[in-house]
Amino acid sequence: MATGFVLISVEPGREREVFQELVQVEEVVDVHLLFGEYDLIARLEADTYDAIGDAVVNKVRKVPGVISTKTLARIQL
Amino acid sequence: MATGFVLISVEPGREREVFQELVQVEEVVDVHLLFGEYDLIARLEADTYDAIGDAVVNKVRKVPGVISTKTLARIQL
Amino acid sequence: MATGFVLISVEPGREREVFQELVQVEEVVDVHLLFGEYDLIARLEADTYDAIGDAVVNKVRKVPGVISTKTLARIQL
Amino acid sequence: MATGFVLISVEPGREREVFQELVQVEEVVDVHLLFGEYDLIARLEADTYDAIGDAVVNKVRKVPGVISTKTLARIQL
Amino acid sequence: MATGFVLISVEPGREREVFQELVQVEEVVDVHLLFGEYDLIARLEADTYDAIGDAVVNKVRKVPGVISTKTLARIQL
Amino acid sequence: MATGFVLISVEPGREREVFQELVQVEEVVDVHLLFGEYDLIARLEADTYDAIGDAVVNKVRKVPGVISTKTLARIQL
Amino acid sequence: MATGFVLISVEPGREREVFQELVQVEEVVDVHLLFGEYDLIARLEADTYDAIGDAVVNKVRKVPGVISTKTLARIQL
Amino acid sequence: MATGFVLISVEPGREREVFQELVQVEEVVDVHLLFGEYDLIARLEADTYDAIGDAVVNKVRKVPGVISTKTLARIQL
Repeated sequence: MATGFVLISVEPGREREVFQELVQVEEVVDVHLLFGEYDLIARLEADTYDAIGDAVVNKVRKVPGVISTKTLARIQL
Repeated sequence: MATGFVLISVEPGREREVFQELVQVEEVVDVHLLFGEYDLIARLEADTYDAIGDAVVNKVRKVPGVISTKTLARIQL
Repeated sequence: MATGFVLISVEPGREREVFQELVQVEEVVDVHLLFGEYDLIARLEADTYDAIGDAVVNKVRKVPGVISTKTLARIQL
Repeated sequence: MATGFVLISVEPGREREVFQELVQVEEVVDVHLLFGEYDLIARLEADTYDAIGDAVVNKVRKVPGVISTKTLARIQL
Repeated sequence: MATGFVLISVEPGREREVFQELVQVEEVVDVHLLFGEYDLIARLEADTYDAIGDAVVNKVRKVPGVISTKTLARIQL
Repeated sequence: MATGFVLISVEPGREREVFQELVQVEEVVDVHLLFGEYDLIARLEADTYDAIGDAVVNKVRKVPGVISTKTLARIQL
Repeated sequence: MATGFVLISVEPGREREVFQELVQVEEVVDVHLLFGEYDLIARLEADTYDAIGDAVVNKVRKVPGVISTKTLARIQL
Repeated sequence: MATGFVLISVEPGREREVFQELVQVEEVVDVHLLFGEYDLIARLEADTYDAIGDAVVNKVRKVPGVISTKTLARIQL
């Protein structure tokens, strides 16, 4: 299984709205509002990294209010 | 008491307007216009970190002209 | 309860060793090796944010091989 | 009067030691330990910006354990 | 011959559209969708660095949906 | 005399237009188009740092097409 | 097949030496010296992302002189 | 003629020493100590970008005390 942590910056004032949308994305396992350099962190799980990539590009980044994302993929050694 | 320093980027040309709004936010103790990587720094104080987080999300980030914020929370050891 | 996500950069070649140490830190709930801008992500939980800050400064950052950390605290609104 | 906010990264494990040294620097008005992207924030005041710059280069940056500094100078319009 | 790698951030949701436009730019040798801090990487080749710069400013950056670019020029020693 | 180097990010496609406006700003001594992380660099000179700050906030940042600026002030020791 | 682009910062003065070592890593398809924010870019290919991750952690990052790496994984949609 | 602006981070306490060395590098046209995110800015000129790249790698980065460099090359359109 592949895991990705997505650090998300959102338009000021739309944090909760983006949060509500993200919890409904199938690959999203959990989401938290953050203090600091990013506004939200979402953890995604899928069968492959390409499926994570697809979910980031086609679902997470399409949520209105999302400005930018930085995905950190988990490595399993 | 919890303290947070918020580094703020604003839309070019709206620095003073954002400054004027921020000084009226209850949790904002002081604000300064900056030279450099960020446009403004605001110091917030509240009873808890969650109250600081709430003020950043619901007050500071909602000021028109704010593009992004980076909050540095004070640690008391 | 307070939660913090710590993004960690480590000296090249010491990733596993740092990983092994972090899983033994009491406040660390989980740790993952990453691909991308940071080398590891650790999730910490404690009663208060000051306890998270204390664990970051006195435990996580003292693990040999840790170069720098960036803590993202969870906000609960 | 000139004011500068210095965001400081320190070697892991030397946060308190650097803190203790900084509070003794003449131009340093206050210092806080931080959670997040930087480890400490110091506020400096002096008669001129060149004096702030001189204090950053010759005093703050010479404290053992300081890795890097980012200075945000206050603008007075 | 001069070579440049352009790291590109795009508006969320326009990744494929930008990708399609970039593959048609004459100087673009290859383009990939990315996971992580940037959304796309394009490799450009031209006779001179000024020609690479010209292609970045006048072609790559003019593709609708491109928000920002960071060009890494290859050095040949 | 005070000197500041301003690293400027502009909206894609407006590089030349911003360049043309900047060369007319009184405090701007020279401006160059760049390759890399920033789009333009401008060197400003004025009698005091506050005058540099004022020119950045009230002139450079007000040029249409400027997205963000990072000012590096020169220190004279 | 999985592809990763690794942006590498090296100790000043060791660029060529690191370059020579990297070209011998099995998964490394090409490497270039860069101008700009990073010192080298290496392209890696392997059967899976975990194999790329393994090569980054166990081969690329272990090359003496490497200070830090940022891996951008290719997504195939 | 090719021009590059090199943003330099130096070990705390070695700013002047690095400055003194840089002014003696043939391609270095001017150098300034900075306030802010970088410690020094140097302007280099040479006949070609490859010569600038060579000077950055083989001269600027080899000055003892230099930790990292970010080169911004000038584009001439």
